[in-house]
Amino acid sequence: MNNFKVIEVKQSIFENNDKRADLLRKEMKEKKTFLLNLMSSPGSGKTTTLTKTIAALKDEMSIGVMEADIDSDVDAATIEQTGAKVIQLHTGGMCHLDADMTRQGVNELGVEGIDFAILENIGNLVCPAEFDTGAAKNAMILSIPEGDDKPLKYPLMFSICDVLIINKIDVLPYFDFDMDKCVERAKKLNPNIKIFPISAKTGEGVEAWANWIREQVNEWKK
Amino acid sequence: MNNFKVIEVKQSIFENNDKRADLLRKEMKEKKTFLLNLMSSPGSGKTTTLTKTIAALKDEMSIGVMEADIDSDVDAATIEQTGAKVIQLHTGGMCHLDADMTRQGVNELGVEGIDFAILENIGNLVCPAEFDTGAAKNAMILSIPEGDDKPLKYPLMFSICDVLIINKIDVLPYFDFDMDKCVERAKKLNPNIKIFPISAKTGEGVEAWANWIREQVNEWKK
Repeated sequence: MNNFKVIEVKQSIFENNDKRADLLRKEMKEKKTFLLNLMSSPGSGKTTTLTKTIAALKDEMSIGVMEADIDSDVDAATIEQTGAKVIQLHTGGMCHLDADMTRQGVNELGVEGIDFAILENIGNLVCPAEFDTGAAKNAMILSIPEGDDKPLKYPLMFSICDVLIINKIDVLPYFDFDMDKCVERAKKLNPNIKIFPISAKTGEGVEAWANWIREQVNEWKK
Repeated sequence: MNNFKVIEVKQSIFENNDKRADLLRKEMKEKKTFLLNLMSSPGSGKTTTLTKTIAALKDEMSIGVMEADIDSDVDAATIEQTGAKVIQLHTGGMCHLDADMTRQGVNELGVEGIDFAILENIGNLVCPAEFDTGAAKNAMILSIPEGDDKPLKYPLMFSICDVLIINKIDVLPYFDFDMDKCVERAKKLNPNIKIFPISAKTGEGVEAWANWIREQVNEWKK
C-alpha cells in the first residue's frame, strides 16, 4: 500500500507567472530549500535517475520529491521506496506545471527542514520549457535512444536548463548517437549549460551529478 | 539545398475542433486521400519509421508527408530523400496540431492524386492526443527504451490510437521492457488497438505495418 498523498493541482488563474515564480523562489530561499525542476521526454529515465540521486545524497541531506503526472502514480510509488518524502501531483491533463501549481505542490509536500526538493515535471520537451516553476535551477534529461538531434528540435528546453543529463550511456554502442555533436548543439543554444553523461541503470557518472547538487544545496543556504 | 516548403501554421481561431475535424475527414474521403496522424514521444523513431514505410509503399501508391515541428526542418530534409512529396509545418511553439492547422498543411501540401498522406505530429504524448486532426486514423509509436509503463502514464494517447507501433525491438535485449505487460496495458485501455512490433532500423516487422496501410488506403477509396 502506498502512503504518499495524491494532489490534484489546479491550473493557475494568475496571469503573471514570472512574477509568481520569482516570489516562490524567494520564499524557498528564505526556507533554505533548494528546488530543482527536472524535465525530459517520457521514458528518458527521470525516475530512475532520481532514485540513484536520492541514494547518493540521502545520508547527508533531507530530500522531498513532487512527482507530477497527467495520471497514475507509478513514479511516486517507486520514489517512496527510496525513503524520501514524496507526494504525487496530478495535473488533470495539463502538459506542464506553472509557478502556482508548483506552489500547491510545495505547500502539500511541506518543505520545512527539506534541504533538496525536486519537482519531477510532466514528461514533455515542449510545454514545461515555457513556464517558470519558481525552481532555483532547471535540469533536463536526454537519453541516448532519443537521438543527438534533439537540441535542434526542442531548442527552448535546452536553452532554459542549467543542467543537461545525458542518460543511458550504457546503451551507447547500440545507437547512432554522436556525443560530441549533441554536446556541441546543446552548447550552441546554451554556452553555460553543465552536461553530465550518466547511466542511471549502472550508476556511472551519477557521482559527478550528485556533486553538482551538493554544491547547489550548500550555495542556496548562504 | 532543401526544396520543400516550410509553412508557419497558425493556431486555430475556431472553437469547434471536432466539427472541423469531421469536415476535413469528409473532404479527404471525397479526394480519396487516406490521412494518417502519426504521434509519439521525441526520439521514438517517427522519422525513421516513416522512411522505411515510404520505401515499402512508394512503388504502389503516391505519398505525401507533412512534418510538424516546433522549429527546425531536419525531419523534412530526411523525408525529402525518400522521394515522397514533403512539406515542413512549424507550429511556432504550439505542442500539437488541431484540425484547422492540419487543413493549412493539407492545402499547402496539395493532396490531389495523393493516396496516402501522413501528418508527423509534434513529439509529445500529451497534447496531440487531445485534438482530433481530421485524420482517417491515428497511429502512435512507443519505443522500447521508453519503457513498458507508458500506457499507465499517458492513457489518453493509447486510448485514441488505432495503431500502436512498438519500435526499436532490435534493442530489446538491452532494456527491461516486458512486451506482454506493455501489450496488456495498451489493450486494457483500448481493446481494438492494432499492435505492430518493429525495428525501423533493421526493417523487422515493417512489412506487417505496411500491409495495414495498404488495406486502409484501399478501404478509404471505396
